[in-house]
Amino acid sequence: MQYDTIVSRTVQEMKPSGIRRFFDIVGQMEGVISLGIGEPDFTTPWHIRSAGIESLKKGKTWYTANAGMKELKVEISRYMQRRYGLDYDANGEVVVTVGGSEAIDLAVRAMVCPGDEVIIPEPCFVCYVPITQMTGGVPVIVPTKPENEFRLTAAELRAAITPKTKLLILPFPNNPTGAVLRRWDLEEIAAVLRGTDIMVLSDEIYSELTYGCGHVCPAAVDGMRERTVVINGFSKSYAMTGWRLGYACGPREIIGPMTKIHQFAIMSAPTTSQYAAVEALRAGDDDIEEMRREYDVRRRFMLGRLRSMGLACFEPKGAFYMFPDIRRAGLPSEEFCERLLQEEKVAVIPGSAFGESGEGFVRISYCYSMEHITEALQRMERFLRRF
Amino acid sequence: MQYDTIVSRTVQEMKPSGIRRFFDIVGQMEGVISLGIGEPDFTTPWHIRSAGIESLKKGKTWYTANAGMKELKVEISRYMQRRYGLDYDANGEVVVTVGGSEAIDLAVRAMVCPGDEVIIPEPCFVCYVPITQMTGGVPVIVPTKPENEFRLTAAELRAAITPKTKLLILPFPNNPTGAVLRRWDLEEIAAVLRGTDIMVLSDEIYSELTYGCGHVCPAAVDGMRERTVVINGFSKSYAMTGWRLGYACGPREIIGPMTKIHQFAIMSAPTTSQYAAVEALRAGDDDIEEMRREYDVRRRFMLGRLRSMGLACFEPKGAFYMFPDIRRAGLPSEEFCERLLQEEKVAVIPGSAFGESGEGFVRISYCYSMEHITEALQRMERFLRRF
Repeated sequence: MQYDTIVSRTVQEMKPSGIRRFFDIVGQMEGVISLGIGEPDFTTPWHIRSAGIESLKKGKTWYTANAGMKELKVEISRYMQRRYGLDYDANGEVVVTVGGSEAIDLAVRAMVCPGDEVIIPEPCFVCYVPITQMTGGVPVIVPTKPENEFRLTAAELRAAITPKTKLLILPFPNNPTGAVLRRWDLEEIAAVLRGTDIMVLSDEIYSELTYGCGHVCPAAVDGMRERTVVINGFSKSYAMTGWRLGYACGPREIIGPMTKIHQFAIMSAPTTSQYAAVEALRAGDDDIEEMRREYDVRRRFMLGRLRSMGLACFEPKGAFYMFPDIRRAGLPSEEFCERLLQEEKVAVIPGSAFGESGEGFVRISYCYSMEHITEALQRMERFLRRF
Repeated sequence: MQYDTIVSRTVQEMKPSGIRRFFDIVGQMEGVISLGIGEPDFTTPWHIRSAGIESLKKGKTWYTANAGMKELKVEISRYMQRRYGLDYDANGEVVVTVGGSEAIDLAVRAMVCPGDEVIIPEPCFVCYVPITQMTGGVPVIVPTKPENEFRLTAAELRAAITPKTKLLILPFPNNPTGAVLRRWDLEEIAAVLRGTDIMVLSDEIYSELTYGCGHVCPAAVDGMRERTVVINGFSKSYAMTGWRLGYACGPREIIGPMTKIHQFAIMSAPTTSQYAAVEALRAGDDDIEEMRREYDVRRRFMLGRLRSMGLACFEPKGAFYMFPDIRRAGLPSEEFCERLLQEEKVAVIPGSAFGESGEGFVRISYCYSMEHITEALQRMERFLRRF
């Protein structure tokens, strides 16, 4: 069989995730201490697991409605109301998905056609570019800069817009940089978009993890609700990665087509996870706050340590990553990470895995205990002294 | 916002599932007795639920590897070996997905490019056509016929092949007809495909539900393994629909690209469900057999009753549906179903929901208790007496 002519060229040319490539190396070594993972180190809080367990005991093992269980959609709608004052009709403006990931895929498939341009601020999470390419869309990369605190500026956005622009992706709070957008940033972005038909995909999976500033939902900014698909989920805020549960809220004209794709490609999100998510939204605020505080302690500790090693490091205000500048060492970021791994057995992710503009940086996660972090940073300091 | 120019035309033009449309009507009525659902009426067996519960108690709430947990991939590989004598390397030839649905979506996205033709025997499940259309592929419908027991014949296949044919979908055991392909049917199909680069997507979600004949996996037929992606899952055989767990096995040249898409669009299948699925494969054979026997009792009862009402009905050898010919009543199948619902409050699905070739038939599910089936068929008989 001529498999190379059988497999779609776009899919063949998609680079597999650079994070995964790096973990494949890590997996083959012994005694490695990792700061690489982008996943909470907390187990899902017991009362949430317990709601899942109860639903299984009661035999709730059937499909739910395609767009999700009604109770869950109502809780999501209430959450959007109490957090941001936004009104989404649980019946038609909310769809429950397999993690935020599926929601991103659905939004792009519903809107992006061959030749459409999608503006993607980088560095960013690894899925936006390949998902855009699979629809025949054209990623238009806007590099964000440390001197702008890795925010997307109105001027950069304006310069990237063409008559073919269909969609702007707003990946804030940002993985890997930890950058957030403030209300005034979003108001400037809204002003640039006013009068256009450009849609916004706002990936807010880290919305609950901000430090010293609340998250502002772009849809809550004047004129933005009608053009914004808000994507969120339970993975990061409630430490529920394995449950694979997320959602999208937006105008019914977009959520409707997204739900149609979801119905054919996925059917419905996992039932047990939906029961657990209802509990999370009803009674999980304290869990979020407890985990957020713990992340914040680690964040402040790590920032101080990295700076004391002489690394320039932007203070992240969201998510659970640091993104220090490692150019001082005089190595490309991939080589930096490989040598750090070989010489000190510490795993961090090359910034270049998140787009070319990540070159010269590394992503360090603080989803680890203080002991673990302390030890890893000691090794890293020893490594840096060699330069 | 001009949403009609924003939403992809292909997605706008995709018809929502005709099954769902019908259930929307049913949902608004009281006292309806349904034979419409395509989902086991059994709860997931307790020991399988229990394995999911244990994993939650132990705090297994993280992502798994993208392609699925190693233990599960190994069990799937063993299953393919003991059922069909097929060898799939758990490392690279198996990917664990969100139900069979996601696996179908991945296979089509990995292979089908704009303009490629996909041969789809109809009547069939509702997702193949829209999923093909979303990639820009062209569905080539081959109507199967009651006089051929709704099998795809070699002659029909040969006539449908053109130089643009990329993929053949084999949806057997079939929803809605209950048709199966026997080894000789598959050998003839294999002979037609020999020497071509046409791939096969074999959707075997009902493989464990056959009556009086075992399921033959197309990949086990000479020359077929290299061109076949086998898709299966836990929903129908183990009564695990809500867990959303399926898988694909095939040549690594295809499973690799499918896994790459899965990594970006879904990340990994739900963790709790993966633990439950390991238990299902290790100790679930007796459950399958028990449910299968119960379905078979209902199948024989229902077939007898439908024929005694004077309806021509092909004897289904697989899945859990009957597909009687209702043309005697002189009504198009949609009108037949609407009147049956209004006049006798019995819900069955118009055959036309599964493709034009389903016109003149209705799908009746026997995923219901004997009492329920008996009552529904009595009402249906009363209805038919009016014609």
